[in-house]
Amino acid sequence: MNRRLLFGAAAAAAPLTLATPALAQSNPEIRWRLASAFPRNLDVLYGTGERIAQRVAQLTDNRFQIRFFAAGEIVPGLSVLDAVQAGTIEAGHTPVYYYTGKDPSFAFFTALPFGLNARQNLAWLQYGGGNELAAELFKDYGIMGFPAGDTGAQMGGWFRNEVKSIEDLKGLKFRVAGLAGEIFRKLGAVPTQIAASDIYPSLERGTLDAVEFVGPHDDEKLGFVRVARNYYAPGFWEAGAHLHLLINQTEFAKLPAAYKAALEVASAEANSDMLARYDHLNPQALRRLVAAGAQLRYWPREVLQASWREAHGLYEEMSGKNERFKKIWTAYRAYRDEEYQWFRVAESSFDNFAFPAAAQR
Amino acid sequence: MNRRLLFGAAAAAAPLTLATPALAQSNPEIRWRLASAFPRNLDVLYGTGERIAQRVAQLTDNRFQIRFFAAGEIVPGLSVLDAVQAGTIEAGHTPVYYYTGKDPSFAFFTALPFGLNARQNLAWLQYGGGNELAAELFKDYGIMGFPAGDTGAQMGGWFRNEVKSIEDLKGLKFRVAGLAGEIFRKLGAVPTQIAASDIYPSLERGTLDAVEFVGPHDDEKLGFVRVARNYYAPGFWEAGAHLHLLINQTEFAKLPAAYKAALEVASAEANSDMLARYDHLNPQALRRLVAAGAQLRYWPREVLQASWREAHGLYEEMSGKNERFKKIWTAYRAYRDEEYQWFRVAESSFDNFAFPAAAQR
Repeated sequence: MNRRLLFGAAAAAAPLTLATPALAQSNPEIRWRLASAFPRNLDVLYGTGERIAQRVAQLTDNRFQIRFFAAGEIVPGLSVLDAVQAGTIEAGHTPVYYYTGKDPSFAFFTALPFGLNARQNLAWLQYGGGNELAAELFKDYGIMGFPAGDTGAQMGGWFRNEVKSIEDLKGLKFRVAGLAGEIFRKLGAVPTQIAASDIYPSLERGTLDAVEFVGPHDDEKLGFVRVARNYYAPGFWEAGAHLHLLINQTEFAKLPAAYKAALEVASAEANSDMLARYDHLNPQALRRLVAAGAQLRYWPREVLQASWREAHGLYEEMSGKNERFKKIWTAYRAYRDEEYQWFRVAESSFDNFAFPAAAQR
Repeated sequence: MNRRLLFGAAAAAAPLTLATPALAQSNPEIRWRLASAFPRNLDVLYGTGERIAQRVAQLTDNRFQIRFFAAGEIVPGLSVLDAVQAGTIEAGHTPVYYYTGKDPSFAFFTALPFGLNARQNLAWLQYGGGNELAAELFKDYGIMGFPAGDTGAQMGGWFRNEVKSIEDLKGLKFRVAGLAGEIFRKLGAVPTQIAASDIYPSLERGTLDAVEFVGPHDDEKLGFVRVARNYYAPGFWEAGAHLHLLINQTEFAKLPAAYKAALEVASAEANSDMLARYDHLNPQALRRLVAAGAQLRYWPREVLQASWREAHGLYEEMSGKNERFKKIWTAYRAYRDEEYQWFRVAESSFDNFAFPAAAQR
């Protein structure tokens, strides 16, 4: 903290009292701390934040140094936003939907069930007004943020038993969080939230019947295939999950322009880099999981249809209670529907011919 | 040229003769020239290169300044690689498949018919060995490159008459370039290459029966809908088309580390930013095109199947003649097939339920 405070004092004083040479002023030595919402073993999620810190150092000849911490080292994984708001740390790397307890509107900027996929979500954030809506929300917490990475479409999770109909969801103890949990509750399941480290034992001893986590690369590490072999697709509640680099507004304002640009561009790099890493690693992991006994399954159509209805009902319900949610949902839905129509034309028509064709030779 | 040469001389001399202060050495004033392969009116293609130049200036406090030129201003759009190789300009922004005349292997790094889509292509380049294979090829031309932007899946073009079967392709004068042209030739069409400015008049006076260009946003500007209303999907020869920032190797080697990083990160930003711009603009343009009379059509299945066969036959044929092509195709094909299998699971299963569902309410 000392170095940060020292810099803070110097930065505030300099323009008023010193005729500092231009070059020194534009390249001050700055030390920040950046906390990840993820533990080290989730190497892509954790590693994306670490790369942002490294890239900023590289771009500034090591004059802007950001120490990077895993979840729990200085801040608990689910308290990153609070710590950035309080100024305990200058920045954090996290999905903002961890904070739907404060305001459900946070969900839009990470992932909404039956929402935008990774590419569509970034288009919305960067060009469709999403970042501006996020900024209005973030401002209430004294923070600003840059989109900084996406997982791509996630899997629907690991189930001890096959789900052949909506009936099979009744009473099912399913580790699934946030708005997706609400949707499954409406379908009769019992959604529970359990920390990552407790999932495997709970599944093994039967406290849980099913669990959703991320996708093949991350799921493989947690060993779910050994106790729940039915691996469902798609994770319709996360067609993409976007992360943010959250920054304390006051600290950001103190930075010289080139350092602000370094944070922005390093985050922008993460938008394609994290997706590319997942797109590279997931196919290999899926192959190993199938070899280890995973049974790839797809949701019955009636489960998808009922979930779609419940999701949209939920958004209407929440719009009635929360003006901000209503405003964002109205804009998001119109944007989503137009993106979906376009993606059917060029992307899906290619995918639906070519992806199966390669398997048939 | 003078400023570049002046810097070139100073950079070569400085380490040997002067005890320059560390800060001055690491932040030298540098002027480069960067030529785009595209004219200004193709605002996303052109604009992506321009943003790279602007971002580099911003990251270096305007000490590394790159003047940006449209196609034809200092270098013709199809000679960017040659100019970078010759050192006439330090850098260029171009798809490298414009240079398949030099070596057909260039195609892999932009777009291959029935190849990787935008996300899969970046995964291959960055993590699957693609960049390393590209570097081996680029080295022979004295250049290096960073992936720097993608169009996403393109459209299959504008046709005066409907294509109901392979029979309808016989003798069809189709403006389509590169390997896709070879595939259409095998299907009986007459592929022709015509500069962008000549397409519309040729189509109007019947010298052409059909034309493919990019996607709704760019196609709309050229007015094709007025003379050829059948708008086909998908552009199976460009499931994504990746651009590169090409840099003269000798000039790159002279840069301080932070400037090298600035070029790399600005290119990386372009990888998601260009796609996000297209994903934002294409849906709106498609809506307007349909309102203006465009008839959205999909290739008959027999056309896709025959094209798939001809494409793969062509790759085998070319592998027999060109060792480098064979080496890259072998690696690329294995990577593609595994990516396709994974994308079917989580991405396509989401898309195929959700995209139509939004249209049905």
